[in-house]
Amino acid sequence: MESDYGIPRELSDLQKHRSLYQPDLPPCLQGTTVRVEFGDATTAADPAGSHTISRSFPHTYGQPLAHFLRATAKVADAQIITEHPAKRVGIVFCGRQSPGGHNVVWGLYSALKIHNPSSVLLGFLGGSEGLFAQKTLEITDEILSTYKNQGGYDLLGRTKDQIRTTEQVNAALTTCKNLKLDGLVIIGGVTSNTDAAQLAETFAEAKCSTKVVGVPVTLNGDLKNPFVETDVGFDTICKVNSQLISNVCTDALSAEKYYYFIRLMGRKASHVALECTLQSHPNMVILGEEVAASKLTLFDLAKQLCDAVQARAEQDKNHGVILIPEGLIESIPEVYSLLKEIHGLLRQGVSVDKISSQLSPWASALFEFLPPFIKKQLLLHPESDDSAQLSQIETEKLLAHLVEVEMNKRLKEGTYKGKKFNAICHFFGYQARGSLPSKFDCDYAYVLGHICYHILAAGLNGYMATVTNLKNPQNKWRCGAAPITAMMTVKRWAQNPNSSFIGKPAIHPATVDLKGKAYELLQQNAVKFLLDDLYRNPGPLQFDGPGADAKPVTLCVEDQDYMGRIKLLQEYLDKVRTIVKPGCSQEVLKAALSSMASVTEVLSVLSTPSSNGMNSL
Amino acid sequence: MESDYGIPRELSDLQKHRSLYQPDLPPCLQGTTVRVEFGDATTAADPAGSHTISRSFPHTYGQPLAHFLRATAKVADAQIITEHPAKRVGIVFCGRQSPGGHNVVWGLYSALKIHNPSSVLLGFLGGSEGLFAQKTLEITDEILSTYKNQGGYDLLGRTKDQIRTTEQVNAALTTCKNLKLDGLVIIGGVTSNTDAAQLAETFAEAKCSTKVVGVPVTLNGDLKNPFVETDVGFDTICKVNSQLISNVCTDALSAEKYYYFIRLMGRKASHVALECTLQSHPNMVILGEEVAASKLTLFDLAKQLCDAVQARAEQDKNHGVILIPEGLIESIPEVYSLLKEIHGLLRQGVSVDKISSQLSPWASALFEFLPPFIKKQLLLHPESDDSAQLSQIETEKLLAHLVEVEMNKRLKEGTYKGKKFNAICHFFGYQARGSLPSKFDCDYAYVLGHICYHILAAGLNGYMATVTNLKNPQNKWRCGAAPITAMMTVKRWAQNPNSSFIGKPAIHPATVDLKGKAYELLQQNAVKFLLDDLYRNPGPLQFDGPGADAKPVTLCVEDQDYMGRIKLLQEYLDKVRTIVKPGCSQEVLKAALSSMASVTEVLSVLSTPSSNGMNSL
Repeated sequence: MESDYGIPRELSDLQKHRSLYQPDLPPCLQGTTVRVEFGDATTAADPAGSHTISRSFPHTYGQPLAHFLRATAKVADAQIITEHPAKRVGIVFCGRQSPGGHNVVWGLYSALKIHNPSSVLLGFLGGSEGLFAQKTLEITDEILSTYKNQGGYDLLGRTKDQIRTTEQVNAALTTCKNLKLDGLVIIGGVTSNTDAAQLAETFAEAKCSTKVVGVPVTLNGDLKNPFVETDVGFDTICKVNSQLISNVCTDALSAEKYYYFIRLMGRKASHVALECTLQSHPNMVILGEEVAASKLTLFDLAKQLCDAVQARAEQDKNHGVILIPEGLIESIPEVYSLLKEIHGLLRQGVSVDKISSQLSPWASALFEFLPPFIKKQLLLHPESDDSAQLSQIETEKLLAHLVEVEMNKRLKEGTYKGKKFNAICHFFGYQARGSLPSKFDCDYAYVLGHICYHILAAGLNGYMATVTNLKNPQNKWRCGAAPITAMMTVKRWAQNPNSSFIGKPAIHPATVDLKGKAYELLQQNAVKFLLDDLYRNPGPLQFDGPGADAKPVTLCVEDQDYMGRIKLLQEYLDKVRTIVKPGCSQEVLKAALSSMASVTEVLSVLSTPSSNGMNSL
Repeated sequence: MESDYGIPRELSDLQKHRSLYQPDLPPCLQGTTVRVEFGDATTAADPAGSHTISRSFPHTYGQPLAHFLRATAKVADAQIITEHPAKRVGIVFCGRQSPGGHNVVWGLYSALKIHNPSSVLLGFLGGSEGLFAQKTLEITDEILSTYKNQGGYDLLGRTKDQIRTTEQVNAALTTCKNLKLDGLVIIGGVTSNTDAAQLAETFAEAKCSTKVVGVPVTLNGDLKNPFVETDVGFDTICKVNSQLISNVCTDALSAEKYYYFIRLMGRKASHVALECTLQSHPNMVILGEEVAASKLTLFDLAKQLCDAVQARAEQDKNHGVILIPEGLIESIPEVYSLLKEIHGLLRQGVSVDKISSQLSPWASALFEFLPPFIKKQLLLHPESDDSAQLSQIETEKLLAHLVEVEMNKRLKEGTYKGKKFNAICHFFGYQARGSLPSKFDCDYAYVLGHICYHILAAGLNGYMATVTNLKNPQNKWRCGAAPITAMMTVKRWAQNPNSSFIGKPAIHPATVDLKGKAYELLQQNAVKFLLDDLYRNPGPLQFDGPGADAKPVTLCVEDQDYMGRIKLLQEYLDKVRTIVKPGCSQEVLKAALSSMASVTEVLSVLSTPSSNGMNSL
């Protein structure tokens, strides 16, 4: 089976052209000398959870941020790595493929070989299972040649997205020891990077010399936090989906007789749906975060959609395009409760055909009301992260069905006088996941690959490679590394008032920020999008000419530069120290003391754990 | 409602860039002087039907081919059109939208204005319904500005695809008279162009001075005959679909656990599926034409697929991609018979819930065996062309279901020892139809629009605009016009041995030629495609750089230049006439006579109507 990996293959003209594309490195990573500057020790964003996290990760919690700077950069206490002994590094794809993954491999390979041609990069074949079974392929220029800037994970393959059980963790440890790896790079999303942190901790505990590095690669775009602005693959997925959504919008406007309900892959959070809406301007999007926040029921939702259809019909518009994130189904409170009951029964071993009779009365009532195809899909076993099999649940068909029933009722009652409601349903996901990566994703992934090398060269363990300031041109990108534990939070569930359950520390998928600028932009335009058909077609993904350098709208409107601000704060603190040296005047000292006293007081108050502290991320 | 048509709209950067693209004209259409050369009178391809056709179309049958040549071309009896009085022309989108349609409007507008700035082009709003209701929009530079090289039919909209009933034809006649149109240009596929021919005949009969011109625009690619090499939109659709299929192939190869069953929009014939296969190399394609020719049952098909899955599993491959044309369901003989029975009962007014009980025993047995979702879809009312609602019948799910059942059975019996079979189903159609048109479709449509003008300037009625030699660069394209009646055939159905029913003359959808070079290419590669995963990713549709100038593979491998050969034959005949002038030697005359006697005898034999003459098209 593994003999098929990494084989050279026939490329189309465009693939060949792309395989010759060479991403630029930001100035800080150019040449063979890079400085590392360490910031202050990190804490967890959620102060309430920091204690739990520090106890779970005694060896890897609280490590400082790292910034990679030009060798000529004037920073007093930055450290230049001058020794570059040959390294042996393993790399593995974990979880669902995301466009650009191959370029992380290429970037890391390239950095390894620049610094020491004797270094070796081993790719694990078949993803995590290859890691457990020590199946490797040594990466070479020849092997990479037909995979540079190409989509998919087929260079190495992937299997399970988890390295979690004791058995799995021990197998990974044995592999790293046997192969004498200096580093293990894990490419994946929230789950895989949480596992990377756990591996790093276990390896440190076991005094294994392999350092573990994570790379944020997930089409969902939900590995997002102060250190990580976006994920490799998200840009491509949103561009490919937006192309298709726009085509459907054009189609709707040409025929003027269908409502298209389009469900978008992207797991629990609605980042893909929000970004695609801002790129292609469909009539409506239902964000899971909005539904959860306003506790809408399935029927509220259907009613909202019907009202929208009716409002459009009054303007003689009998067509439309509605986006639905695949995670929506779990965001509807009563459906979520139903799913939890079903999953609970499944876990108890209750067989599928008996579940309906063992549901609580209200859950049973909802379940029996649903059309048969959805019932069947809700009864599927949950995924490894306890969520429902979101890709298999056709929420778009359920909503279209409910809207059709209600519109027919309104038509009969005479409260709706428009044309018959006709829906066509789509699920966009698999057809985008294997796409050629956009220029942005090619560049971002390649740079992250280089950063992985520098993290290992600096001897860091349990870090994630990061690039910030991404919305600016590549020569302004800031390269760094952040301890993965600093991205973790701890979930509390209070299932009934008397019990509360504390979860394991993990990187949780970031949800769409309903106070953020991207959502604000959507809200400003929502009515116009709904009624005025302002469809916009970004067109197919381009590699040359207009549109080729476009970046996600959500990335560009958010004002994210957290790492930049952290650095700026350090500069202020240094400046105060420089100005208020022993020997300075009493006035200056007094002014400094009184100002700093007030600053520290404000910050102490803001940072005290509080009951709603969790929402502050 | 019509106030929304033709309004300027916000374009994305790529759309703006495309709106500035100016297609080249072939040399014969450049400048303001064009020669028209008339060929011999045309006949119908099917000699057996020609009598029926000539009787149905007394005014428009048997007209000569027309070739448009450079003003400087040295052709003795070509006619130069020097007078260009102002013309009033109407244009209408008929039937399903196909990328490039807007450029026909632009090309015609541009040619009209070049030859006489006082000419007027009226677009009918809302397609054929606008034609019946005299709803028009005068096309201007300003209106066109945001629609040049853009997808969809939203400049003017479209509704029904038929102009057929007496009421409809009379309404069209009244409109053309009232608006004093010199020409009516109909943009559409086989159905719309058949209607165009009928309108032309009716108008001639009614002494209406409006000339009717058809333009081959259909994503199905099934308006294909000696005069028409391909249709506007086919190239774009195949490129967009091939991109998505390739992405799914990459996805399959990365995860190695799913079989993807992808159904492709394209009506009865399998042109789209064949072209996409040649572009993206999925593991399998099931052409409707193959199934019909070898009379495979649904179970034969499922068994073939299972054997393929099993053969791949023996090579440790548990993934794959299988293409299915939407017309396949009607190509399976027993399903077709079932559909005919259902449609017959529906036409008799039998209600949907009673149909199953009134089917013949064998049809009922098949029907009852099918899963519920397919039953429901088979019971849908047929389309206006009597075919089933192909876009609504999920053949891909039916096949995936049958394969799953059979593979589970084999697994249980121990005859299959591979992994559990997992299928994911897709339907690609709507998401491609509204795409930005490819460069080829932009060029082809624009040139066809220009040709429409020259057809009208030459005073021709009942013609279709044609461009041949399309696989060569644009400066080699041959522009012409062919009477639509020359593309018609007459269908005979022998439903039982004692009765035979003769249909109306019509342009029928061309099926994939199982003796053609494109199919031969597929057959040569079928085993490799099935087993070796030679997936090829042509990538997203590009407008610059590699791949931007690609043309359909099927167009390039077929050796189609019929119009060129007709012209070459004319040159030979002229040469004989020139050599054998009165006064030539006896030897020359004798040689000419004996050669020509043998030529005419061979041709007479070949052209005699025979029982299988219909298949010779």
